[in-house]
Amino acid sequence: MDHIALLGLGTVGGGVAEILMKNRSDITAKTGLDIDIKHILDLRKFPDHPLGDRVTDDYNLILGDPEVTLVAEMMGGVHPAYEFTAEALRAKKSVVTSNKAVVAEYGVELLELAAENGVRYLFEASVGGGIPIIHSMTDSMYASDIYEIDGILNGTTNYILSAMKETGVSFDAALKDAQKLGYAEANPTEDVDGFDACRKICILAAMASGRLVYFRDVPTKGIREITTDDIKAASAKGGAIKLIAKALFKENGEIELSVAPEVVYPDNPLFNVNGVYNGVLVRGRNSGDLLFYGSGAGKLPTAGAVISDIIDILLHKNEMPAQKLWHK
Amino acid sequence: MDHIALLGLGTVGGGVAEILMKNRSDITAKTGLDIDIKHILDLRKFPDHPLGDRVTDDYNLILGDPEVTLVAEMMGGVHPAYEFTAEALRAKKSVVTSNKAVVAEYGVELLELAAENGVRYLFEASVGGGIPIIHSMTDSMYASDIYEIDGILNGTTNYILSAMKETGVSFDAALKDAQKLGYAEANPTEDVDGFDACRKICILAAMASGRLVYFRDVPTKGIREITTDDIKAASAKGGAIKLIAKALFKENGEIELSVAPEVVYPDNPLFNVNGVYNGVLVRGRNSGDLLFYGSGAGKLPTAGAVISDIIDILLHKNEMPAQKLWHK
Repeated sequence: MDHIALLGLGTVGGGVAEILMKNRSDITAKTGLDIDIKHILDLRKFPDHPLGDRVTDDYNLILGDPEVTLVAEMMGGVHPAYEFTAEALRAKKSVVTSNKAVVAEYGVELLELAAENGVRYLFEASVGGGIPIIHSMTDSMYASDIYEIDGILNGTTNYILSAMKETGVSFDAALKDAQKLGYAEANPTEDVDGFDACRKICILAAMASGRLVYFRDVPTKGIREITTDDIKAASAKGGAIKLIAKALFKENGEIELSVAPEVVYPDNPLFNVNGVYNGVLVRGRNSGDLLFYGSGAGKLPTAGAVISDIIDILLHKNEMPAQKLWHK
Repeated sequence: MDHIALLGLGTVGGGVAEILMKNRSDITAKTGLDIDIKHILDLRKFPDHPLGDRVTDDYNLILGDPEVTLVAEMMGGVHPAYEFTAEALRAKKSVVTSNKAVVAEYGVELLELAAENGVRYLFEASVGGGIPIIHSMTDSMYASDIYEIDGILNGTTNYILSAMKETGVSFDAALKDAQKLGYAEANPTEDVDGFDACRKICILAAMASGRLVYFRDVPTKGIREITTDDIKAASAKGGAIKLIAKALFKENGEIELSVAPEVVYPDNPLFNVNGVYNGVLVRGRNSGDLLFYGSGAGKLPTAGAVISDIIDILLHKNEMPAQKLWHK
């Protein structure tokens, strides 16, 4: 039996607990692993949760438990998630995360810290929710010769733009609707101003190139200024406005990153990525165009991505495969 | 330096040689590996090929070379590709292949033989050309709880159906056109009668379930009987006819496989998979719908998939990860 700890029993953490309980025998049949959630770090109490008795607010209990070899960080926010991640790695526990903010800010340092301690730091769930884009870029694209990545990486803005196109409502009305449906936060700036998509394209570009560009250095424009007239003008030309996070890999080794609304036409596979879905178009000189499409967020898809990282680590615990380090 | 052998210097084999030469330093930078093609088995001579001096028609030279730890089989056809694969595995050499016919017919036996000999048998390139669908199903979908796979897995038939829809030509005219463009063989039965798609859905279903259904037991219908009237009737309802290879995974463990033309509507992500492209829709209770889209054939995309398997094996040569066996 492998003992792990969850940091956070919110949406994603709750999903991980749910799948590991519900699909336990299936996962054991497929992997030979029997995964036990030994501790859950959360400041709240969960008296009615089946694992409520494992919830603790004392991180030292987890750090000091030699049986726990893996920590799944799903707290959100940069602090103290970053510090907790670093402490776990220093304690020679591998860490998996859904936290793109930490990966985009501290990915270079944390990958290095993991390597120094002979453990791993994985983050499939940080980009594209349940879409296995990080795994694919890690294991399947050595020979692709990637020159461009275009992503619809934020479900909230894609939902708003899709609604504006389909129903003709204004940005403000579509945003309010998205907030009502739980697709947008009360303070929507992270999504609608493009910052979330920006962090994600920085992570994807680092997967392709080994270089993590700092997200604050990337020209980033959101969708606040998109009007119904803009949408109509795009439609009249047969196009649709999408918030495109873009990475261009130049022959000279330079990387050009940007996030901005763009008119996309039906010959682009991203044209058909609508609503809360995400899509990542990876263009390679050898591979041609590849599109990965799926739920970019949501409890169970994102939790499934976290679990795929957990299983990857537990299956290779006797010999950790070397992870590619990033530089700045 | 890692020494490998290629079996076959046709389209895919030639592509593997081309990428390994052209992108050698890039692959070394990304993986730390320096991959040398030591032997190439082919009955033909290639006096003008840069690796022409490594071509041999004597397979025993490869089997008996202890420096060669990996064989990439890209001969096509079941015999002698199957026998050569088995001999390589018995000689404790891992094998990677693009040969869906061998995987669909002998996958159970060859995976077992690889396990008995402590080596691996990988076949990313056997389904979906450059789309990393096999890797994704191997490593990223333990927790997806897959209940259905729908694939457009044959580029030839998809090209023909797309052409019939777009230009109104008959099946016969579209087939002739596809043959002229090199998208269809002189004897097109393998493609147009659905057998190729059938082998591929059998392989995908085995990835999901561990059970390889024998392709001759799968109800398989091709596109020969599709008329321009059928296409028009589908278009009139807003749909498009696609050759869909389908796997349904029942709660009781049964698997239902089929290949048949189907009218697909715009709410299905496969609706937009046109021309020679392939698309695989994987539906999971936890993951939601995932679409993988890309070049389903072609020299460099398929060769890239072969190379991703080669690198996977060479990176893990000190400790071979256990492969999941299949049963019948």
